[in-house]
Amino acid sequence: MIQIWHPCTQMKDHEKYPLIKIKNAKGVYLYDFEGNSYIDGISSWWVNLFGHSNERLNRAISNQIASLEQVIFAGFTHERALELAKLLSEVVPDNLSRMFFAEIGSSAVEISLKMSFHYFQNIGQRKRKKFVSLKNGYHGETIGALSVSGEDLYKKAYKNILPKNIVSPSPDCYRCKFGYSRETCNTECFSDIEKILMSNSEKICAVIVEPLVQFAGGFKIYPAEYLVKLRNLTSELGIHLILDEIATGFGRTGKMFACEWANVKPDFMCLSKGITSGYLPLSVVLTTEEVYKAFYDDYITLKAFLHSHSYNGNAISSAVAVETLKIFKEENVLEKNKEKYKYMRSLIEDKFCELSHVGEIRHIGFISAVEIVENKKTKKPFNWKRRIGFNIYREALKRGALLRNLGDIIYFLPPYIIEPHQIEALVEAAHQSYLEVLNR
Amino acid sequence: MIQIWHPCTQMKDHEKYPLIKIKNAKGVYLYDFEGNSYIDGISSWWVNLFGHSNERLNRAISNQIASLEQVIFAGFTHERALELAKLLSEVVPDNLSRMFFAEIGSSAVEISLKMSFHYFQNIGQRKRKKFVSLKNGYHGETIGALSVSGEDLYKKAYKNILPKNIVSPSPDCYRCKFGYSRETCNTECFSDIEKILMSNSEKICAVIVEPLVQFAGGFKIYPAEYLVKLRNLTSELGIHLILDEIATGFGRTGKMFACEWANVKPDFMCLSKGITSGYLPLSVVLTTEEVYKAFYDDYITLKAFLHSHSYNGNAISSAVAVETLKIFKEENVLEKNKEKYKYMRSLIEDKFCELSHVGEIRHIGFISAVEIVENKKTKKPFNWKRRIGFNIYREALKRGALLRNLGDIIYFLPPYIIEPHQIEALVEAAHQSYLEVLNR
Repeated sequence: MIQIWHPCTQMKDHEKYPLIKIKNAKGVYLYDFEGNSYIDGISSWWVNLFGHSNERLNRAISNQIASLEQVIFAGFTHERALELAKLLSEVVPDNLSRMFFAEIGSSAVEISLKMSFHYFQNIGQRKRKKFVSLKNGYHGETIGALSVSGEDLYKKAYKNILPKNIVSPSPDCYRCKFGYSRETCNTECFSDIEKILMSNSEKICAVIVEPLVQFAGGFKIYPAEYLVKLRNLTSELGIHLILDEIATGFGRTGKMFACEWANVKPDFMCLSKGITSGYLPLSVVLTTEEVYKAFYDDYITLKAFLHSHSYNGNAISSAVAVETLKIFKEENVLEKNKEKYKYMRSLIEDKFCELSHVGEIRHIGFISAVEIVENKKTKKPFNWKRRIGFNIYREALKRGALLRNLGDIIYFLPPYIIEPHQIEALVEAAHQSYLEVLNR
Repeated sequence: MIQIWHPCTQMKDHEKYPLIKIKNAKGVYLYDFEGNSYIDGISSWWVNLFGHSNERLNRAISNQIASLEQVIFAGFTHERALELAKLLSEVVPDNLSRMFFAEIGSSAVEISLKMSFHYFQNIGQRKRKKFVSLKNGYHGETIGALSVSGEDLYKKAYKNILPKNIVSPSPDCYRCKFGYSRETCNTECFSDIEKILMSNSEKICAVIVEPLVQFAGGFKIYPAEYLVKLRNLTSELGIHLILDEIATGFGRTGKMFACEWANVKPDFMCLSKGITSGYLPLSVVLTTEEVYKAFYDDYITLKAFLHSHSYNGNAISSAVAVETLKIFKEENVLEKNKEKYKYMRSLIEDKFCELSHVGEIRHIGFISAVEIVENKKTKKPFNWKRRIGFNIYREALKRGALLRNLGDIIYFLPPYIIEPHQIEALVEAAHQSYLEVLNR
C-alpha cells in the first residue's frame, strides 16, 4: 500500500503530530473527520482568495467542463484563454502585451528565465548567461527556479547540481546592516545589488525579485523605492527585470500587483497562486512586445520559443481564473479588503505589540507577520532547534486556527472573504498559542 | 490588449495558418466556431484517454468541488489523495511504496532528480552528482528536466544555462548503427550506455529514460530487453533508475505501464498526462521505501525533502485521477483497447505500407507512427526545411483530423474511446493528406 510523502515536511514529525485529514471546507473553514474546524489563516499556502468551495467559482467550473475541459494549446485556442488575456490586460502594467501559459509558479519562473536568456541569444548579446536574485528570495524549487533562490533552507542541499547564478544581499529592514530604521531609510542597501549589476552588466540576462515582500524568506517587507532604483538601473544597463508576483499578486499587498506601489513596469511578470483563487494550478508569464518580437521570424530561422507543457492553457483552470478576475471587477474587492485588513492589523498590534518576545510586527495589505525573537533588544533569534514557531503553529491548530509558521515568524494571510469575528478568533488563537509556548 | 503566445510554436506560422478557436469538445471530436469538427487523433498532446467532456469525469469534479477544492498539503491530507494512493498501489510495480505529488510532468522529473541526488547526499555517497539520459529522450522543459533531455530541438538554445549531465547514444531501431533489424537485434546498442555507466559509476545518481518509447524523439520504439539490461546494470552499480512514464503510462503502450513489458522495477517512476484522463495538471513521483527512509529522521538533522509546490495534492485533480483509475478497473479498458488498436494498425498498414515515402511504420499499444523519408531505401530524410510532416498536419486539419506531426513523423494516438468508424476517418484523412502533400 502506497503512502503519501508530503511536501515541505520532515515526515518523522508526523509520529508525534498525525496528519489532519480534511473532510470538507467552506469559506474560511477547514473541517476534519474528527469534527474539528480550522480557520484557514494562511489561505492554504497563500492561494485562496474567496473562500473554500466558493459557489460562484464552482459554477464557473461546472459550466466549463460541460463544454470543454482541455485542448492542445499549440495551433488551437479557446474562449476562456482569450477572455483571461483580455481581463489581465485591464489590470497588469500596460507595457506587458504577451502572455505565455504554464501551470505552476516554478514553471512560470523557469519560462521567464529561459525567455530572457533566449531573447539575448536571439538578438546577438550572447555573453548574457547569468541571473541575479536576492538573498531570502524564493522563486520555486525546480532546478532553474532554485538556482535563483536566496533561501538556503531549500537550496543548500542541491548546490552541486544547480546552475551557478548570482545572489545579492537583500534589504533587511528589521535588521538593517546600515543601522537605519524604516523611517530613516534611504535604501542605502541598494548599493549591494548596484555594485553587482555594474560590475557584471554584460553577463547578466535578468534580475528576478519578489516585489516588496519576500514571502518564504520570512515576510520581509522592503521599500518601494528599492524597486524603483532597481528598475532604473536595470533599464539603464539593458538587463531584464523579472517580477515574481506569484505570491504578491491579486490584491495580497493591497494593490492588485505589488509593483503598483512603486509604479514599476517589469520586462517579465510571473503570476500564479491567487490567479485561480486557490482552486487549481495555473500560471502565466507576461512580457513585452520587444521580447516577443525577438522570437518572431520564419520557422526555419529556429528562433521560436518551443517550451511547452501538456496542460498549457487548460480550459478549466482558465475558467476559474476568468471568474476570479470578474469577482475583482464586480465586487470591489481591493477597496473592501482595506477595512478588513486594517481591523486585523489593529487586533494584532493590540495583542502582540507588548509581548516580550515579539521583535517586529510587519504589515502590508492583507498580510501581517509577527517575528518572534529571544531578545527583543538585540533582535537575537531563538535557537532554531527549539522550533518556537512550529510549536505555536501546533498549538494554534488545537485552538481551531491554521497558522503555519515560517521559522519563528507567525503570519496572518487569510482569504479575503474572512469576517471580523473570524479575524478576532484567528488573532486570539495565535495569541493564546504564543502564550502557551513562550510561557511554558 | 494582451495577446497569447502559444507553446511549441513559431508564432509567425499563424500569419498563414490562423489559430483554430475551439468552441467545445465531446468524445473524440473538437468543434470550432466555424462549424468544423476535428477528430482528436493525438489525444490533445497525449493526455486524453476517455474523450472530451466525459460525463463520468465531469461528475467526479462536480462532486469534489462541492466539498473540497484545495487544502494545503503540508500537515494536512484528504480523502481523494489517499484514495489515489490506494488505487495506484494496485497497478504500479510493488516495490514503489511512497508517492510524492506534483502538478506537471516536468516538475515530477525535477523532483525525481532532486530526490535521487539528495538521497545519495543523505547516505554519504557525496560524489554522485550526474544524471545520464538517452539521446532523443524528452523529460520536460524546465531547466533541470532539459538538462537530461536528449533532444536538441528543445535543448540546444539553452545549453549555456543548463547543468551539465551525460547524454548517452540511444537505441535507434529504424536506423541501427550496428546494422541489425528488430528481428535480428540483440540490443547491441546497450554497449554505449554500458560504457558510460561503467566508467562513471561513482559519479552518477540516476539514469532517466522513457521506457520503450521515446515520444517527442519521434516515437522511437526500442526493445524491452534494453530496459532489462539497464535495470540489471544500474542495480549492480548502485545507480537509480528513473522511469519517466509520463507519456507511456496509463495503458498507452498496451500495458498499464510500459515497464511491465520488461518486468522491470524502477527506483523512481514519474506519472502525469493520462493520470487525470487529460483533464487537469497532476503528476506524481513514486519511489521506494529505501529512498524514503534516507530522508526520515529528526527534524533537526535537516535531512527532509522540503520541495513543495502550492497546489501539491490538489483535491480536484486528485478526484479526476481517482475516477480515471476506477474507469480502468471497472471498464476493462486495456483489454477493450486491444481490438481497437489492432484495427487501427491494420488500416494504417493497408494505407501506408506501400507508399513510396513511408520509411517505417511503428506500433506499440495505442500508438502508431509513420516515418516519412525522402528515400525509402537509404532512409534519407527530407530536408527538414520542407516541413513535410507539418504540411500533412495542416492538410489533415482541412479533412477534419488533428494529427500533429513530430518532424516528418505522423502519429496516431487517439483517445481510447474512439470507435471503428472514427478510426477509419482518421486514417483516411491522414492518407489523403499524405497524398496531397507528397504528390504535389
